[in-house]
Amino acid sequence: MITQNEEKLHEECGVFGVISPKAADVAQITYYGLYALQHRGQESCGIVVNDDGVFASHKNLGLVGEVFSHSVLSNMPCGRMALGHVRYGTTGAATYSNCQPIEVNHLKGKLAVAHNGNLSNALALREALELSGAIFHSTSDTETIAYLIIRERLKTQSIEMAVSRAMDFLEGAYSLVLMSSQKLIAVRDPMGFRPLCIGKMVDEAGETTYVAASESCALHAVGAEFVRDVEPGEIVVFDANGVLSIKDHCGKACKKLCIFEYIYFARPDSLIDGVSVHAARRRAGEILAEKFLADADLVVGVPDSGLDAALGYANVSGIPYGIGLIKNKYIGRTFIAPGQDNRLDLVKMKLSPVINEIRGKRIVLIDDSLVRGTTCRRLITLLREAGAKEIHMRISAPPFLHPCYYGTDIDSEDHLIATMHTVSEICTLIGADTLAYLPLESLPALACGNGYCSACFDGVYPTEVPSDTRKDRFERKLSEIK
Amino acid sequence: MITQNEEKLHEECGVFGVISPKAADVAQITYYGLYALQHRGQESCGIVVNDDGVFASHKNLGLVGEVFSHSVLSNMPCGRMALGHVRYGTTGAATYSNCQPIEVNHLKGKLAVAHNGNLSNALALREALELSGAIFHSTSDTETIAYLIIRERLKTQSIEMAVSRAMDFLEGAYSLVLMSSQKLIAVRDPMGFRPLCIGKMVDEAGETTYVAASESCALHAVGAEFVRDVEPGEIVVFDANGVLSIKDHCGKACKKLCIFEYIYFARPDSLIDGVSVHAARRRAGEILAEKFLADADLVVGVPDSGLDAALGYANVSGIPYGIGLIKNKYIGRTFIAPGQDNRLDLVKMKLSPVINEIRGKRIVLIDDSLVRGTTCRRLITLLREAGAKEIHMRISAPPFLHPCYYGTDIDSEDHLIATMHTVSEICTLIGADTLAYLPLESLPALACGNGYCSACFDGVYPTEVPSDTRKDRFERKLSEIK
Amino acid sequence: MITQNEEKLHEECGVFGVISPKAADVAQITYYGLYALQHRGQESCGIVVNDDGVFASHKNLGLVGEVFSHSVLSNMPCGRMALGHVRYGTTGAATYSNCQPIEVNHLKGKLAVAHNGNLSNALALREALELSGAIFHSTSDTETIAYLIIRERLKTQSIEMAVSRAMDFLEGAYSLVLMSSQKLIAVRDPMGFRPLCIGKMVDEAGETTYVAASESCALHAVGAEFVRDVEPGEIVVFDANGVLSIKDHCGKACKKLCIFEYIYFARPDSLIDGVSVHAARRRAGEILAEKFLADADLVVGVPDSGLDAALGYANVSGIPYGIGLIKNKYIGRTFIAPGQDNRLDLVKMKLSPVINEIRGKRIVLIDDSLVRGTTCRRLITLLREAGAKEIHMRISAPPFLHPCYYGTDIDSEDHLIATMHTVSEICTLIGADTLAYLPLESLPALACGNGYCSACFDGVYPTEVPSDTRKDRFERKLSEIK
Amino acid sequence: MITQNEEKLHEECGVFGVISPKAADVAQITYYGLYALQHRGQESCGIVVNDDGVFASHKNLGLVGEVFSHSVLSNMPCGRMALGHVRYGTTGAATYSNCQPIEVNHLKGKLAVAHNGNLSNALALREALELSGAIFHSTSDTETIAYLIIRERLKTQSIEMAVSRAMDFLEGAYSLVLMSSQKLIAVRDPMGFRPLCIGKMVDEAGETTYVAASESCALHAVGAEFVRDVEPGEIVVFDANGVLSIKDHCGKACKKLCIFEYIYFARPDSLIDGVSVHAARRRAGEILAEKFLADADLVVGVPDSGLDAALGYANVSGIPYGIGLIKNKYIGRTFIAPGQDNRLDLVKMKLSPVINEIRGKRIVLIDDSLVRGTTCRRLITLLREAGAKEIHMRISAPPFLHPCYYGTDIDSEDHLIATMHTVSEICTLIGADTLAYLPLESLPALACGNGYCSACFDGVYPTEVPSDTRKDRFERKLSEIK
Repeated sequence: MITQNEEKLHEECGVFGVISPKAADVAQITYYGLYALQHRGQESCGIVVNDDGVFASHKNLGLVGEVFSHSVLSNMPCGRMALGHVRYGTTGAATYSNCQPIEVNHLKGKLAVAHNGNLSNALALREALELSGAIFHSTSDTETIAYLIIRERLKTQSIEMAVSRAMDFLEGAYSLVLMSSQKLIAVRDPMGFRPLCIGKMVDEAGETTYVAASESCALHAVGAEFVRDVEPGEIVVFDANGVLSIKDHCGKACKKLCIFEYIYFARPDSLIDGVSVHAARRRAGEILAEKFLADADLVVGVPDSGLDAALGYANVSGIPYGIGLIKNKYIGRTFIAPGQDNRLDLVKMKLSPVINEIRGKRIVLIDDSLVRGTTCRRLITLLREAGAKEIHMRISAPPFLHPCYYGTDIDSEDHLIATMHTVSEICTLIGADTLAYLPLESLPALACGNGYCSACFDGVYPTEVPSDTRKDRFERKLSEIK
Repeated sequence: MITQNEEKLHEECGVFGVISPKAADVAQITYYGLYALQHRGQESCGIVVNDDGVFASHKNLGLVGEVFSHSVLSNMPCGRMALGHVRYGTTGAATYSNCQPIEVNHLKGKLAVAHNGNLSNALALREALELSGAIFHSTSDTETIAYLIIRERLKTQSIEMAVSRAMDFLEGAYSLVLMSSQKLIAVRDPMGFRPLCIGKMVDEAGETTYVAASESCALHAVGAEFVRDVEPGEIVVFDANGVLSIKDHCGKACKKLCIFEYIYFARPDSLIDGVSVHAARRRAGEILAEKFLADADLVVGVPDSGLDAALGYANVSGIPYGIGLIKNKYIGRTFIAPGQDNRLDLVKMKLSPVINEIRGKRIVLIDDSLVRGTTCRRLITLLREAGAKEIHMRISAPPFLHPCYYGTDIDSEDHLIATMHTVSEICTLIGADTLAYLPLESLPALACGNGYCSACFDGVYPTEVPSDTRKDRFERKLSEIK
Repeated sequence: MITQNEEKLHEECGVFGVISPKAADVAQITYYGLYALQHRGQESCGIVVNDDGVFASHKNLGLVGEVFSHSVLSNMPCGRMALGHVRYGTTGAATYSNCQPIEVNHLKGKLAVAHNGNLSNALALREALELSGAIFHSTSDTETIAYLIIRERLKTQSIEMAVSRAMDFLEGAYSLVLMSSQKLIAVRDPMGFRPLCIGKMVDEAGETTYVAASESCALHAVGAEFVRDVEPGEIVVFDANGVLSIKDHCGKACKKLCIFEYIYFARPDSLIDGVSVHAARRRAGEILAEKFLADADLVVGVPDSGLDAALGYANVSGIPYGIGLIKNKYIGRTFIAPGQDNRLDLVKMKLSPVINEIRGKRIVLIDDSLVRGTTCRRLITLLREAGAKEIHMRISAPPFLHPCYYGTDIDSEDHLIATMHTVSEICTLIGADTLAYLPLESLPALACGNGYCSACFDGVYPTEVPSDTRKDRFERKLSEIK
Repeated sequence: MITQNEEKLHEECGVFGVISPKAADVAQITYYGLYALQHRGQESCGIVVNDDGVFASHKNLGLVGEVFSHSVLSNMPCGRMALGHVRYGTTGAATYSNCQPIEVNHLKGKLAVAHNGNLSNALALREALELSGAIFHSTSDTETIAYLIIRERLKTQSIEMAVSRAMDFLEGAYSLVLMSSQKLIAVRDPMGFRPLCIGKMVDEAGETTYVAASESCALHAVGAEFVRDVEPGEIVVFDANGVLSIKDHCGKACKKLCIFEYIYFARPDSLIDGVSVHAARRRAGEILAEKFLADADLVVGVPDSGLDAALGYANVSGIPYGIGLIKNKYIGRTFIAPGQDNRLDLVKMKLSPVINEIRGKRIVLIDDSLVRGTTCRRLITLLREAGAKEIHMRISAPPFLHPCYYGTDIDSEDHLIATMHTVSEICTLIGADTLAYLPLESLPALACGNGYCSACFDGVYPTEVPSDTRKDRFERKLSEIK
């Protein structure tokens, strides 16, 4: 079985929360929100409903549509609040116990946590907690966050104060939505690595339902109006009294939004920190055309994530934009990939050339990234078989050279083609006529004034770097210490 | 729960067959072929393997990926031949007994039948067979075809002779792939309503595996080379001796390929009777631009089926092509559609505007058809909320005015908006600024010299029309006669 | 995976039908009826509801509790009639297409058929039908019965007349319940091989609901009162006008009730042709004690089917009855049997000795039959390990020596231990101290005046014997004829 | 849907552990062990395998046969140790997070815990732990035990020392099997409320595999030899060095084995603390015959748990033992109980009288307990309808009068018929002619010298009694504290 984007990088998570002025079918709203965030995580998902202080939850491995059947969803109670999560899982194995939102019980009540991002000091925090007697059920660092908040909660008057104090310990990327008995809380780390935004729906009686989500596309899906992004370091508290923002508690840090959210992770119809994802991608294509113009007949984007940049390239270059590749939209998690039979080729199943468009033409082929290069090589073979005369490959991102510690699955440098080969070698390996990447110095044009993290391209890390960053670091550690 | 294209017309079926020179994993090849034909039918599917005369089959309601799990597929035996089918079901209820391929046992052995199309004289044939003592297990007219072939088989020397004689009785649309103990047979009705093509794979030893499929995209998926379309009225017989074509048995009829295969049903990367589906759709967009040019800023296609025509419109008009709508690619059969809550809107979940692209612009919106008009109205509302200043709707087909008796689900005129309203009324109803359809007289430009059936647009039926054409006609008949 | 009685013979089927004076939840009544008949067939099951001439059905492989989930059952419509079936399958493979009741469509309406038994002339009938143009979807001989009835229906005025005429062609065992648009019909073959009885429930308004079932235990389960057995050769017609019995149409034959219904197949609380199954089994034990008294300390029955005879043996012999073996009641179809590991033993999992009862004692062990003898050998080992000093095995049936052609799965003589060994050899093989079978001449005492078939013990067949009786005879035939 | 014993009391759990001298299919052994313990808990189950320090687990709601499919079981790794659990759940809701064994991660490695019993001071312990910063994921008190062990582990040199120190805090019933990276540990609380025993298998090389299980029937099922019961308060440590027993660490307490293990919970073929369960039950029947002899014709036990006592009653009284009731062995968790329709009666579906045995007779009916009395009343009606002339009810336990705090689900006195009515009133309510219970003073005869707890009968609690004992006490507490 394969995942839908086997050679793509993966975002770890999407989070969603809703608080209504009165009991409502908040599970259903969350269900639609998670459907809109499904591209951010396809491994597991979950929903927790807060029905007057009683938490009812359902979570499991699988897509939203698999985990939430009609009977499961209709059995969830109404309530004033709900929390939802979709997960890919960059740290911790794909097991039930790593499904989110996580729920913990403590003296002051219940707390549910949905988390997007990765702590860069997770292992150190975990060890310190264990030394003080903590036990952990999962191997995800979300449990560490929950522990710190609860520990601080015992010393403070409110959950938001506990969150604020816990943030003093956390380093790295975390966009959180938290739910206690009475409050829904949206938190973004001081560097704002991962996006998080809030929206609202006003009903006929003038009462307001608030929504927090990883991306604005989820607000749109549930019929909510975009209000604003949560600011880096900000804690937004929603409860029966309204909305409260806490901002000054943590020191001022530069925004370090993950630039790859613009390049690949986010949905093109989302708006992140004021910038349209579609526009950023088109701009990448425009820059590629300005800097690496090819003498060609047709610009073809690799569906779906290469289409926006292809349109930008076509517009600037004057070369016609073409629909040259058709993606089989039914191939999902249950698809059984072919084995050794060399007639049967996964890339052929997933992408099919529109032969009439391709035949005899010189093609500019646009994709958003190159990880190991194998899919790209097959795709180029496919286009040549369909009659393409030349293939000019353009990548709408710089080459991946460094691991990411903030919530994507670039875990080591071992499998990255660009760490081992020059651009011209890669061009030969994938079988293209020419190859060009988006230059590092063009990234500011995508971010439009937002500070950003491009460590995976340039190795400049905004936080201290952990010594062990492998995805299974918690599992391995546990088996090493006997 | 909803189907992926709730307001779209549905094609009934896709068929696939393979014959190998020696025992091979033909079930796996068929599995990949069906994945590539999934757009032609999402209600049920099935595969029958012929393992040296013993037939092993698996079929059920559901998508290919749901019905064929890893364990089911790996438990299917190897064999020299296999037959596959995906079904939407334009006649007969969605029950297990209507799943295909159907298999029947008779004195001369076994026969499996996979059928795409609808007989226009099915009811009369069925009654005649029942009067002679036949009993029917299903309510699909495929069983009628099987009966006729077997009845003739008792009087003839070969299965292909029986097929030829059975064709004298059949009227209407049928592209068939049949499998007997020794032979794989591809048949297309004399008018060629539905597509059917053949391909081949030559292995290293120079031995040839043949494949028959509804569309050429399925040949590509399994790594086969396109050989040619099956001709209207032709019977192609594959067995251990090679390939035999029978053509002269049935009178010469004009080709009447369903024009809607080009407009919507087929996949854009398929080639049908020598014409590229993508090219036909782009041409429709070009004609719309020539005849109904709008003064606008952006051309937006409704994904996925409106994109090709949108590109054609943009190219001819000079108005920029834009990616203005994003389709949620995770919404499938398991998606639970929202109920009364008016905040939650199915169209919003499925299609989301790229606000930055849309805002302040005059939009030409291109879709392939308008059935009831409700989805279109909501979509236009959505675009206006996103800031579109004007919406000029262009439909890349003429208005639907008449029922289809050849295998699509336009069963009555009751729900077709165009039978009840003028174009200008429809324009008002859907909330567009202007509206135009592709003119009837432009259809030849799409078909490129192929004869075609456009009865759903012009009411000119190539065969006699049945008196009762409702989808449940067999079920009702059975409950009326006590 | 194992079936619950892996070394036991299997009954093929149980049938159930209900007709109510007005629309009622007849599916639910049938569901409870099938639960009570589940011991007669665990391979597949099905229910067909007749809702004013419209038939709604659900059937699948699996136990009643697996096939009929809450949602499936609650989605079945109300109606005046329903038909149900549980199947083990003595002929025809375990596939969906062999699930019953079968439903066929024909000119005069619909017919559903539930069948218990095996035709001894099935193959000849099938060939004759195929020569006249019939096609078969399944490999069960129930379809042959349906065909004959429908063919006669075209020549007669009523369904019951058609059944009567069809019976002239049928040879062998068949207890049928049939359902047409207007009538429920119970039929038992002229020799009465398989049981069939009718019951009724009178509601407060004095209106009567009739029920037909394979065994009286199913009448009890649904709250119906036992009325009488259907007589051999009788056709009982239930419709809006009441009940009609047709008896004189077929020649008088001697009753040949399968004696193994008393010995093992039926449930002990059922009454068949006036004889209590429990009493018949106890009598078998009493006779064994009279004829083969052992000098022993405890009588132990192999649960569950050996308990009745053990009680009879204890009563006559004066040796105490003991609970010496406990059966694990959770081991069912989903249980995964151990592989080669010789510590893990299926018999140990299923049956466990009550060591305190067994230790140091001389045991009379009673079971209802010995097929291959392997289970028995392990069981005796088990009891010796638990401390039994002697084991005196007593079988409450004569030795199996001949195949059955009337609906049980003794298909060949190859695996029957008694065809290859003398009683004393078998005693040694299974490791018992002494062994005795019920004598042939004692069978009349079990049947209490009913004529019976004991062909599996004595080779005296009441009908002509078919030449090919293997379970897969239809499948093989089809693959042989190419 | 119903559970198999809806009106019965429920045991909470069964535990199983295995340690092999080398890597083996310990998951499979545990699977068979859990099958044999399934009667102790049908709500959820789980297995954890220790593969050289890496823990692999699978657990879910459902029976062993439902949770462990062939593919799940075959995907579990081999290892040297495994832990298994079946749960009914007397405290904590039936959710995934309450499934056992629970696994926790901490600084010194991993720990898995399987627990049978209930702590009487669970709530106080939990609050103390939460005040020190602990967070809880589940609502079962097993997590409390794990926490205490881990907390002590940080202060001690070995896991067994930590267990010993943790036991100083625990009050109430706990039979535990624990698994760390290197050790398997069996623990029984100082009063020995719940059973726990150990067995061994010696392979051909003379190497020993050890097994620990709740009941000896599980040893038998996996082919292990019974070694001995774990003593109250004992810690038995199994590792690569062999077996170590720790006994003197906790003060000497009187054994207080739950007497209801003998009366109903345990399987009759188990031996607990030297006493055969079957023998204890038969003795109960013998005492009832001695003290409450009825003038009757037949002794009938309610299957399955009343059969042993019925045999004892028959033996002493001289009244014949009869098989008068047949239990439908297919009715399990998936059975859909009938609704209002008064013809359809759950008791009728589950139990069916053997009419020939019952008719005209005076019956002594033996059951093990009477909770609400409703099932018994219907059963007596059933027997009278079957023709019983008199019914003399005998219960092989004293009346339930007090809640249990040690792991059974007698949570309150509200539903116990004996707290509200005299014996003579109950006799009238259930419709019996006479009724008698086993006298309190006869219990020592069942326990054969073992100290026992009979608090549910006499209100004498061996530990301090908690103030809130409702099953959902943790859930409610959490929703009350906001």
